Amino acid sequence: MEPVSLARLLITCPDQPGIVAAVSGFLRNHGANITALDQHSTDPEDGTFFLRAEFTTPHLDLPPDALGSAFARVVAEPFAMTWRIDPAGPKRVALMVSKADHALLELLWLWRRGELDADVALVVSNHDALRDEVERFGVPYHHIPVTKETKPEAEAQALALFEEAGVELVVLARYMQILSKDFVDRYPNRIINIHHSFLPAFAGADPYRQAFERGVKVIGATAHYVTADLDEGPIIEQEVARVSHRQQVADLKRVGQSIERDVLARAVRWHLEGRVLVHENKTVVFA
Amino acid sequence: MEPVSLARLLITCPDQPGIVAAVSGFLRNHGANITALDQHSTDPEDGTFFLRAEFTTPHLDLPPDALGSAFARVVAEPFAMTWRIDPAGPKRVALMVSKADHALLELLWLWRRGELDADVALVVSNHDALRDEVERFGVPYHHIPVTKETKPEAEAQALALFEEAGVELVVLARYMQILSKDFVDRYPNRIINIHHSFLPAFAGADPYRQAFERGVKVIGATAHYVTADLDEGPIIEQEVARVSHRQQVADLKRVGQSIERDVLARAVRWHLEGRVLVHENKTVVFA
Amino acid sequence: MEPVSLARLLITCPDQPGIVAAVSGFLRNHGANITALDQHSTDPEDGTFFLRAEFTTPHLDLPPDALGSAFARVVAEPFAMTWRIDPAGPKRVALMVSKADHALLELLWLWRRGELDADVALVVSNHDALRDEVERFGVPYHHIPVTKETKPEAEAQALALFEEAGVELVVLARYMQILSKDFVDRYPNRIINIHHSFLPAFAGADPYRQAFERGVKVIGATAHYVTADLDEGPIIEQEVARVSHRQQVADLKRVGQSIERDVLARAVRWHLEGRVLVHENKTVVFA
Amino acid sequence: MEPVSLARLLITCPDQPGIVAAVSGFLRNHGANITALDQHSTDPEDGTFFLRAEFTTPHLDLPPDALGSAFARVVAEPFAMTWRIDPAGPKRVALMVSKADHALLELLWLWRRGELDADVALVVSNHDALRDEVERFGVPYHHIPVTKETKPEAEAQALALFEEAGVELVVLARYMQILSKDFVDRYPNRIINIHHSFLPAFAGADPYRQAFERGVKVIGATAHYVTADLDEGPIIEQEVARVSHRQQVADLKRVGQSIERDVLARAVRWHLEGRVLVHENKTVVFA
Repeated sequence: MEPVSLARLLITCPDQPGIVAAVSGFLRNHGANITALDQHSTDPEDGTFFLRAEFTTPHLDLPPDALGSAFARVVAEPFAMTWRIDPAGPKRVALMVSKADHALLELLWLWRRGELDADVALVVSNHDALRDEVERFGVPYHHIPVTKETKPEAEAQALALFEEAGVELVVLARYMQILSKDFVDRYPNRIINIHHSFLPAFAGADPYRQAFERGVKVIGATAHYVTADLDEGPIIEQEVARVSHRQQVADLKRVGQSIERDVLARAVRWHLEGRVLVHENKTVVFA
Repeated sequence: MEPVSLARLLITCPDQPGIVAAVSGFLRNHGANITALDQHSTDPEDGTFFLRAEFTTPHLDLPPDALGSAFARVVAEPFAMTWRIDPAGPKRVALMVSKADHALLELLWLWRRGELDADVALVVSNHDALRDEVERFGVPYHHIPVTKETKPEAEAQALALFEEAGVELVVLARYMQILSKDFVDRYPNRIINIHHSFLPAFAGADPYRQAFERGVKVIGATAHYVTADLDEGPIIEQEVARVSHRQQVADLKRVGQSIERDVLARAVRWHLEGRVLVHENKTVVFA
Repeated sequence: MEPVSLARLLITCPDQPGIVAAVSGFLRNHGANITALDQHSTDPEDGTFFLRAEFTTPHLDLPPDALGSAFARVVAEPFAMTWRIDPAGPKRVALMVSKADHALLELLWLWRRGELDADVALVVSNHDALRDEVERFGVPYHHIPVTKETKPEAEAQALALFEEAGVELVVLARYMQILSKDFVDRYPNRIINIHHSFLPAFAGADPYRQAFERGVKVIGATAHYVTADLDEGPIIEQEVARVSHRQQVADLKRVGQSIERDVLARAVRWHLEGRVLVHENKTVVFA
Repeated sequence: MEPVSLARLLITCPDQPGIVAAVSGFLRNHGANITALDQHSTDPEDGTFFLRAEFTTPHLDLPPDALGSAFARVVAEPFAMTWRIDPAGPKRVALMVSKADHALLELLWLWRRGELDADVALVVSNHDALRDEVERFGVPYHHIPVTKETKPEAEAQALALFEEAGVELVVLARYMQILSKDFVDRYPNRIINIHHSFLPAFAGADPYRQAFERGVKVIGATAHYVTADLDEGPIIEQEVARVSHRQQVADLKRVGQSIERDVLARAVRWHLEGRVLVHENKTVVFA
C-alpha cells in the first residue's frame, strides 16, 4: 500500500474569479484530497489572492515530482501565481545561539517532546558555553568563534556545515552576531530571529534597557525572518506582557525571556508546518 | 448593470474527498466568484468537514433563489451537507435589556458608526429606564414589564413585535429574565446572550460576587447562543481580564462591564457577518 | 460632626532609613488615619524612594492647610522630598477633541455613571461635529477652529476658558492639533493624551497605517502626559490587541479604537485618584 | 561587619488607626530599615487590614529571634494581629511529579538560573520516568510508587523524607495523586498545586478534554494552595490563552502546558519571596 503523504500548497497571485475552483479541481483530478484550505484576498477587485491548502495524496495518478510540474503548467502559469508545494515531514534545522540558553532550550525541549516537526541537525555557537546542554539532547554542537576579522571565515564555516547537513531552516535563538548579507541571501525567508522587543519599538541593542528607560508599560518580543536590514524583516509573531514601574531592567529581562521563548517557538512551529507566506515584507500566517 | 451582491455559504458534513472541488466548481459554473474560503476538518478520516465561503454574484446565470435549490440538488445532497446560504446585507435585530446600559449602548453606538451590519428594529425592556437613551438613536423602545404571572403574555407580546418587525437576531444585552423554552425555540441559534463570567465558571446569578468570593485572579465574560438550558448554550466568544485582591465586587463589575461590551460586540458582529456555525453545542467561528 | 475627608500624599525623595516611620508618625500625631500605603525604592542604597498614602482626616488637630505647611517643615524638608497632598473629591476637567467621538464618549459615559471622580467642566473642539453629543450630557461645548495662523489666538481662547472654569486636568480625547510649548507649560503633568499606537512604535501621524505597512501582529494605544516633545511624554498606560494579516487599515482602526477608549479611561481614572507620580519622564502608577 | 539581612513582615488584623505608624516606628526603633511597604484595607470602618513590609536589619539592637518576641508583645497583641516574619534567603523545597515533565523542568531550569530563591532539596515521584532529567540538575530523585493500598505508607515515606530534608514548601508540579488530609495538614498553605484549568471551571480530571467538549474560547491554568477540599484551595495565580474551534484536545494540552509552566513559576516565586498571605480561603498577593 502506498503511504499517504501530506503536503501544503501556498499561493500568492492577483485575484480573479475561478482560482479556488481551478486549484481544487486540479488536486481532485490527480487524486489528491484537500484536508484544509484557507483563502482570502486583500480586495476582490485588483487585490492579492492568498491561499494555503493542506492535502493528502492517497491515490496520486502521477509521481509527486510530476504533480508540481503539472500544477505549474495547468494552474500556476495561467493565474500568474507565486507558489510552492511544501511537503510535510520534518525539516532539517540548524540553531544558532550565543550564551543565553532560554530560547535554545525551549526549542530543544519542544523538539524532544515531538512538538516540532523538525530534525535538529546541529547547533552553532560563537561561544562554547552551552555545549553540554546541547549534546545532552544528542545534537552536535559546533563552536565557531567570531571576531570582526574572522567573521567571513566563521560564516563560511557555518554555511559549509549547514550545506553538509542539508539545513532547510536556520533559527537564531538569541545569536548575538549580525549576519552578513551574503549569509542571509543563502536562506531567503528561511532564517528566523527572535528580537527581544515588540518591533519596531526598540530595535537594536539592549532593548530591555531601552524599554526601562522609556518607561513603557508593556514589553514584548518579535520573531521575524532575517533580511539584510537588521530588525526590519517580515514579522512572523509578536507577544507582549505588562510590566510596572517597580520592575528594574533585570525584571524586564526575566519576564521578557518567557515571552521570547513562546514567540520564537510559535514562529518556528508555524514555519515548519508551512503556515507562513511572505509577501512584500509582511507575512501571511495561516494559523 | 446588475448589482454585485455578496453572500456566504456555510457547510457542515461528513468529510470525504472532493468537497471543496465540488463546491467551488458549482459556484464558478453559475457565475459566482469566491472571495474568501475557510475550510477544515476534525479528521480527514471519519471527521466532520466545515466550510465557509464568501462569494459575489456578478454574473449569476440563474435567479438567486434558484441558486439555492440547484446547490441543494447538485452538491448538498450527495455530500449529506447541513448548509445555509446567508445573504449579506443588514439583518433585522431586536435588543432586549433590563436596567444596565453598558452592553446596550455599546451596540447602539457601534451600529450608529456603521460598524454593525444590522437594522436595529426595536428595543424591548422589562423596565422603562433606558427609553430616552434608546429613542435618541431613533430606535423604538417597548416597555414590557414581566412578573412571574405575566411572563407568558409578556413573551407573546415581544414575539409579536419581533414577528411584525421581521427580526432575524435577538440580542440579550443584559436582559435579566430567563426566556421560556418556547421563546428560545422560535429563534434557534439566533438569540445571543452575554453572561458576565467566563463560563462554565460562575453560571447563574451574581457572577462577580461569586468570583470575588472564590478569589479568582481573572474575571471574564461569555457571549453564547441561548438554549433551553440556562448558561449552557454554544459559546461564541469569551474574554478575560486580570483582577487583584485589592478589588472589591464593585471593581470587578466595573472591569467586567468593559469586557462584556467587547465580547458581546464581537459575537454580534461575527453572527451578522455569517461567521458562526453551530455544531453539537459548540461554535465554529470563521473569524 | 466634622466631615471625614480623604486625601493622598505622594512623595519622591532619596531613600534613607526612617522615612515611613516619619511620615506615618506625623499623620498619626495630627489625627489623620492611613487607609492605604504603597511604598518602594529603586534601591535601598542610593535609590529613589516613592510613596503614596491615602488617609482620612477624622480628628485633624489643625486646619487642612496647616497640615501641609507642618508636613513641609517637619518631614519633607529633612528628607529632601518632592511631595504633594492631593485632596480627594472631583477634579475640574476639560476635554479636547477633534472629530472622532469614541474616546470622548467613553469618558462622558463613564463620568455620567459616576465612575470618574471629576467635574467635566467643558469640551473644546476645533470642529463643531460633536456638539449635540456633548450637550446631551449637559456639558458646554466650545467650538474653537484652529488654522496655522489662528493657533496662538485659539490656544489663548481655550486657556482663558480653562482658567475661568478652574480646570485642573486637560484630556486630549483624540484632539488632532499639536499644542504649543507655552500651552503645555501651563499644565505640567496635567494634560493627558491618547496616542493610537504602543509608543515608542509608530509615533507621529496615522499610526494604524504605519502598523499595517510594517505588518505587526499586535497594535496598541498609549496614554501619556503631554510634554513639549511630541509623543515623548511620560507614559501612564498602554494596552495592545492581536491583529492578523487579514485585517486592513480600517479593521486596525476599529480594533484600536476599543483599546484607545480603555487605555485613556484607565489613565484618566488613575490621575483623578491621585495614583500617578512623574519622575524623570516616567510614571510611577500606584494602581 | 554584621551582614545585612532582609526579611518580610506580613500582617492581617482588624483595621484601626495607627497601625502603620506603630509597625514602622517599632522597626525604626530597633534599627530595621523598611525598603518596601504595601498596605491596604478592605474598608477603613470594620475592614481587614493587610500589610507586607520588606526590611533590612543593618543595625539591629537585639538578636533576630528577640525581634519577633518584642514585636509580638509591643505591636501584634495590642492590634490583634495574625502575623509572621519571613526571613529572606532560600527556602527548602520539595517537588512532587508524576510523568509529565513540563512544570517540573521549568522550575528546575529557573532554579538553576538563580531565578527562584530556593534550595531544591528533592523530587518525589510515583513514577521513575523523570529520574535522569532530575538527577542531571544534581537533585535527589525518590521513586515512591502509590497504589490505593500503599498510599498511607507512601505518604509517610514522603513526609519522612521531607522532614529529614527540612522542607518548607512542597510543589506539586503535575503530581497526579490526591494527597490525604493528614498530609495536607502537615504543610498548611505550604503546598502549591498547578491545576490545568481556570478554576472553578473544569475542576477534577482531564480538564482539557472538559474544555474541548464545552467549546470554550479560552483555556487556562490555576496555581493554588492545597487544602483538604480538592481544587478548592486559595488561588495564588491564574492565566489564560485563547483557543479556537480548530484546536483539538492535544492542541489545548500543548497550549495549556505553556500556561501551566508560567503560572506555577510565578506562584512559587511569589511564595518564596514572602508575597502571599492567605485570608479566608483567598490570597492577598503583594506582587
